[in-house]
Amino acid sequence: MTRFPHDEFAKGFLESLLSPFGKVQTSFKIGSEVREVDIYFQPNPQVESDLALGLLGKLAKNSLIFEPFRNPVKTQQIRFCMGKLYDLHADLFRESKRNKQPEPKDSELPCLWILTPTLSEAILDGYGAKLAPEFTPAGVYLVNPSYKFGIVVIHQLQKTPETLWFRLLGKGNVQSEAIVEVAKLPENHPCRQNALDWLGNLKVILESREVLEPEERDLMMQLSPLYLEKIRAAESLGRQEGQCELLLRLLNRRVGSLSPEMQDQVKALTLARLEELGEALLDFTSLTDLETWLNQLH
Amino acid sequence: MTRFPHDEFAKGFLESLLSPFGKVQTSFKIGSEVREVDIYFQPNPQVESDLALGLLGKLAKNSLIFEPFRNPVKTQQIRFCMGKLYDLHADLFRESKRNKQPEPKDSELPCLWILTPTLSEAILDGYGAKLAPEFTPAGVYLVNPSYKFGIVVIHQLQKTPETLWFRLLGKGNVQSEAIVEVAKLPENHPCRQNALDWLGNLKVILESREVLEPEERDLMMQLSPLYLEKIRAAESLGRQEGQCELLLRLLNRRVGSLSPEMQDQVKALTLARLEELGEALLDFTSLTDLETWLNQLH
Repeated sequence: MTRFPHDEFAKGFLESLLSPFGKVQTSFKIGSEVREVDIYFQPNPQVESDLALGLLGKLAKNSLIFEPFRNPVKTQQIRFCMGKLYDLHADLFRESKRNKQPEPKDSELPCLWILTPTLSEAILDGYGAKLAPEFTPAGVYLVNPSYKFGIVVIHQLQKTPETLWFRLLGKGNVQSEAIVEVAKLPENHPCRQNALDWLGNLKVILESREVLEPEERDLMMQLSPLYLEKIRAAESLGRQEGQCELLLRLLNRRVGSLSPEMQDQVKALTLARLEELGEALLDFTSLTDLETWLNQLH
Repeated sequence: MTRFPHDEFAKGFLESLLSPFGKVQTSFKIGSEVREVDIYFQPNPQVESDLALGLLGKLAKNSLIFEPFRNPVKTQQIRFCMGKLYDLHADLFRESKRNKQPEPKDSELPCLWILTPTLSEAILDGYGAKLAPEFTPAGVYLVNPSYKFGIVVIHQLQKTPETLWFRLLGKGNVQSEAIVEVAKLPENHPCRQNALDWLGNLKVILESREVLEPEERDLMMQLSPLYLEKIRAAESLGRQEGQCELLLRLLNRRVGSLSPEMQDQVKALTLARLEELGEALLDFTSLTDLETWLNQLH
């Protein structure tokens, strides 16, 4: 009581005034529960985010947490997420104090991004959320800046490559169409493999479940050919590696130890070339034969 | 991983996309720290709040938490308080689930009221806080309803009896003037004694501190006469009780055991009457003398 007399005055006085009219609890303890933030991202200032990330890259210019919802977020769930965000802020302030560093600036504190398939106007209005076309023409909402949170309404996003990664987190048709777009991406697109891996992962998990919603059944059906593509690619990679390994062993037996450079040259061969080399090596008698064979490829 | 495949898909996929560009942590744990809400009030629906509470009574029609600040609240402190509010909401949801009761409605969840002496326009704007004249003409701000919080900027409140209890929690002149107003309230005002007690309390604590801010020194000076008033009132009450006690003992000795009714009659006498009775009892010889004396008062 002696440390903060004004605080104690305020608490005690308000308590005395209010107690005839209800239950008053001062210094009421809350929240020893450990909670989890789904995704906490802190950008590396040395690395420019990739254009291929589109809208995701724009959001990820700043420290953030993502809370993705499979079903439309409820108004109290938004507050629970805000609670976690502000507790994280408090942690960051405590940490800077512990490490005797300056307090984090407002702009350095993470933002909360809620990802929801759909959301009613009423809930958006309740938080004063307004369209933020500075990010993308539709589907991204911001509230007053000091709350440090925004909402991505996935099914409102325009169907552009920029929004693809978020639409992949949508439901039903929105997700289906996004999966088709991912499948059509050029093979060398930096995010395509990631997406296919995770979609494959999702398929395997859904497969293992006994009960599936009709929507999930459709999703599974759609994921199957993509998954098969991944499986075939994996098989084909495995086949090539297996042949290459066997060839190197035979060559070592037949013509002696290969230099690391020669090994690399062999490893770089296509499947067709490997098969050719397999036939040719039966006639080799020395390392020079292998060298000659490799050189004639150029 | 098998329980929430879509959640895990969203987390894993976003993590894989973002990890080249910074630090990604999924299922990041936060906030095992126990925190305190300054004042948590739940109204008793059976009791109508007193008009004498003014603005305080208007706010206290609903469940609320108060977070009073002695110095102007900072923008991150507002978020910390919101974090506590939303964690309290989460506790209430868990509690209703545990007790197999229906989920609390939005309107039943407590609001946060931040009490601050002053606040910059910039901070108010940052939260989209707008004047709420439905409570009082100035000094009360509300934000979009789903956040469930408001701000009382104490030094902006009009100097009316309605706002007195909040102004007493202000600083400097605002608090001084409120103290003067409290002193001038009629003796029988339902909240006057409460306020004087708590102000007396504050004075005693400030007195015990070695270092006082100049403003606190002024406050002390101002509290002194009020405190003296309380002390004198206490002395006077004590004196009356002491005399009454002694008189009852003497009467018992002189005229025999008094009935409970007669004792009550004596106890209800004013100080002046008690003194008269003290002189009269020297001539009493029986209980009838006392009865006659008491009857002649009417």
